[in-house]
Amino acid sequence: MIARNKSGVLKDIATVFAEHNANIVMIHLEACEGQCDETYEELYVEFEGEIIEDHLITSLQNLPGVSEVIIHRSFGDIYGKRVIIIGGGAQVAQVALGAVNEADRHNIRGERISVDTIPLVGEKTLTQAVDAVARLPRASMLVLAGSLMGGDVSKAVDRVKASGIPVIALNMAGTVVDHADLVVTDPIQAGVFAVMHVSSIAVFDLYRVQGRKF
Amino acid sequence: MIARNKSGVLKDIATVFAEHNANIVMIHLEACEGQCDETYEELYVEFEGEIIEDHLITSLQNLPGVSEVIIHRSFGDIYGKRVIIIGGGAQVAQVALGAVNEADRHNIRGERISVDTIPLVGEKTLTQAVDAVARLPRASMLVLAGSLMGGDVSKAVDRVKASGIPVIALNMAGTVVDHADLVVTDPIQAGVFAVMHVSSIAVFDLYRVQGRKF
Repeated sequence: MIARNKSGVLKDIATVFAEHNANIVMIHLEACEGQCDETYEELYVEFEGEIIEDHLITSLQNLPGVSEVIIHRSFGDIYGKRVIIIGGGAQVAQVALGAVNEADRHNIRGERISVDTIPLVGEKTLTQAVDAVARLPRASMLVLAGSLMGGDVSKAVDRVKASGIPVIALNMAGTVVDHADLVVTDPIQAGVFAVMHVSSIAVFDLYRVQGRKF
Repeated sequence: MIARNKSGVLKDIATVFAEHNANIVMIHLEACEGQCDETYEELYVEFEGEIIEDHLITSLQNLPGVSEVIIHRSFGDIYGKRVIIIGGGAQVAQVALGAVNEADRHNIRGERISVDTIPLVGEKTLTQAVDAVARLPRASMLVLAGSLMGGDVSKAVDRVKASGIPVIALNMAGTVVDHADLVVTDPIQAGVFAVMHVSSIAVFDLYRVQGRKF
């Protein structure tokens, strides 16, 4: 939607979705660049529920704060499940190499698996980034790629696992290897394992080899 | 927030934010796994505006559909700007190699740059993924990594550029190279250029070499 940038407009939009029994699962608001007036912003909404699409769109278009409504496919349809790789640059890049090449083999057969990475340093920074994985949309797997991780990072690994996201760690110094679901020495294999597990085509199930080191 | 999974609850939450003059910029709703009751979900909300945090939290906690409110740092603070790489697996992996290593050098000095990838094949699939970059939160750069891209993909490149996101293409067959801001032959250099441009520390500005081929 192109909608007016005012704090009450979202309330009106949420009310319309509620009236049509549509459950909003994601909203993202971003300032327009070049394409629309300064007082308007782009609002991206993902919803679920059995709705009559034409009625919903008409109701949204009739709101005073909304100037345009366009239907797109969801991020889930387009970018699919996300494998998240966090750690040191050299190792993150190698895990990504394995993961991207394996994702290519699955996506070519119609799946959608993304490989998202951030190279970071420091226990506090890493802990923040690991914890935030549990809140990331469509995150399906975390790979920790480094040479030394422990302390608060290990506690964050436990929290990510408790949120239902499995964790693979490279074989490294520190306590993180005792908290991960799987420990893998070769970074390329770690990336391949990660994608194989989240794929709905592949036969690999990480939990069948849980606790093992490769 | 841990909130009840009902379509009207979001309306109540949006109303509270509006009453406190807080502008919601992102919402993400996800089913709880393991941590809470089936009838509740995790709701992640990013907001901006000058608010009294304690008052806002108290008002949210008083809503009948909300059972818990926790303050986290935003995805922007933790994962920062995103470089998006789309294309064929072999080349996406090489661009990622350059981008992740360059991001490492910036993030180690306190920046936050993520490198997010998806390997895909086919004009329609690629066009969808390229177009969706304009709607992705925090997307700051798109790199197209392949050997042949044109047709509708080139039109999508124009739309992404119009949304304010610059586009780098590998030197390849097809018309996409005529639409990208920059054409780069070496995939590792393409990844490095991409991160250098989005970095606020680096001196490189893609628009100063716009239209060139390296």
